[in-house]
Amino acid sequence: MNYLTYLSVWDKLNKSQQDTLINSAVNRKFKKGEILHNGSDDCTGLILIISGRLRAFTISEDGREITMYRLFERDICLFSASCIMNSIQFDITIAAEKNTEVLVIPSEIYKSIMEVSAPLANYTNEIMASRFSDVMWLIDQVMWKSFDKRLADFLLNEMSIEGTSTLKITHETIGNHLGNPREVVTRMLKYFVNEGLISLSRGTIEIIDKDGLEKIID
Amino acid sequence: MNYLTYLSVWDKLNKSQQDTLINSAVNRKFKKGEILHNGSDDCTGLILIISGRLRAFTISEDGREITMYRLFERDICLFSASCIMNSIQFDITIAAEKNTEVLVIPSEIYKSIMEVSAPLANYTNEIMASRFSDVMWLIDQVMWKSFDKRLADFLLNEMSIEGTSTLKITHETIGNHLGNPREVVTRMLKYFVNEGLISLSRGTIEIIDKDGLEKIID
Repeated sequence: MNYLTYLSVWDKLNKSQQDTLINSAVNRKFKKGEILHNGSDDCTGLILIISGRLRAFTISEDGREITMYRLFERDICLFSASCIMNSIQFDITIAAEKNTEVLVIPSEIYKSIMEVSAPLANYTNEIMASRFSDVMWLIDQVMWKSFDKRLADFLLNEMSIEGTSTLKITHETIGNHLGNPREVVTRMLKYFVNEGLISLSRGTIEIIDKDGLEKIID
Repeated sequence: MNYLTYLSVWDKLNKSQQDTLINSAVNRKFKKGEILHNGSDDCTGLILIISGRLRAFTISEDGREITMYRLFERDICLFSASCIMNSIQFDITIAAEKNTEVLVIPSEIYKSIMEVSAPLANYTNEIMASRFSDVMWLIDQVMWKSFDKRLADFLLNEMSIEGTSTLKITHETIGNHLGNPREVVTRMLKYFVNEGLISLSRGTIEIIDKDGLEKIID
């Protein structure tokens, strides 16, 4: 199976460009929790997700985290190849949220084709615009939305991603997604328990009243 | 004077592409405060700033504002042509901060050249990456920096942009830049006065102790 066909631009590349990509792309597997890319220290390459899930986040000077976006099967991770563009002047960390299998396209190979191929350059533009939209959504959330709305939204999103109302996730992990201290998460979860929206047990959050959480968001 | 040469990619376009741009680009002038582009309602075109200054910001549902970035002479405003990319799924508003003269390249013209020109597509990539970096800086600020640091940074930046330590700016305008209510700005400015960093008079902020403001940021 040639996973490179996941690139929707594949058919617009010429034979030689396709061959170059096929010969240079490398399969890699990452265990849950493993870091694939760390800030500006490395330029791993473009990462195409075959299976699993990645999380892109930033870390503050004192070690706090906030999730920028998550990437799923068939998604492309562009910023792990940040050296392909001079104007990318920020650090992002990419970690595996599950055991994840990827295809890595070396940065210099991708860059050399992008420089001559308008279709690939435009495809790259679309990927970046899509991540830009994620980040603009995040700004809207952290600037204007109260924490109860953000937490309710996060829980419903997790429920949808995992396909279950029983979420195995710690309060600290939620804090790292939303950019808030663990205690703030715990306090709001307890409020949700009192409202009959969820129940808590060790390492697990059970969503009881989905409609109630949706009402909080609106 | 052909201001299109401000596009650093100009020499890499062929004669026919250059002619198309020259024939379609339109000079426009905007008065201070005028809105050039409003959310997703319009797709004005790519805006090249000849002189003046633009501000890109988003507006919350209840009308609060926060500045994403500002654009100066020779800068390019890409998101006023957001319809050139499907994946741009967010609204941004662009306003003139001063009387501003621009060159507008119609979106469909720019898009048609970008689709076939790898240099123009890559140039567009670099512009977007640059704005992406601005927005990542903003997230870092609003997530992890206390308001005194953000305000001190803003005042020093204004001083540098305007080339004077006497800033003619209202507390409300500062609030709209930083995404905070006017009262919060006023309270922190008064604290800065007490610390001997600035002085206030009607519609004016005088920066007295630049070093002191810099110390707050560090």
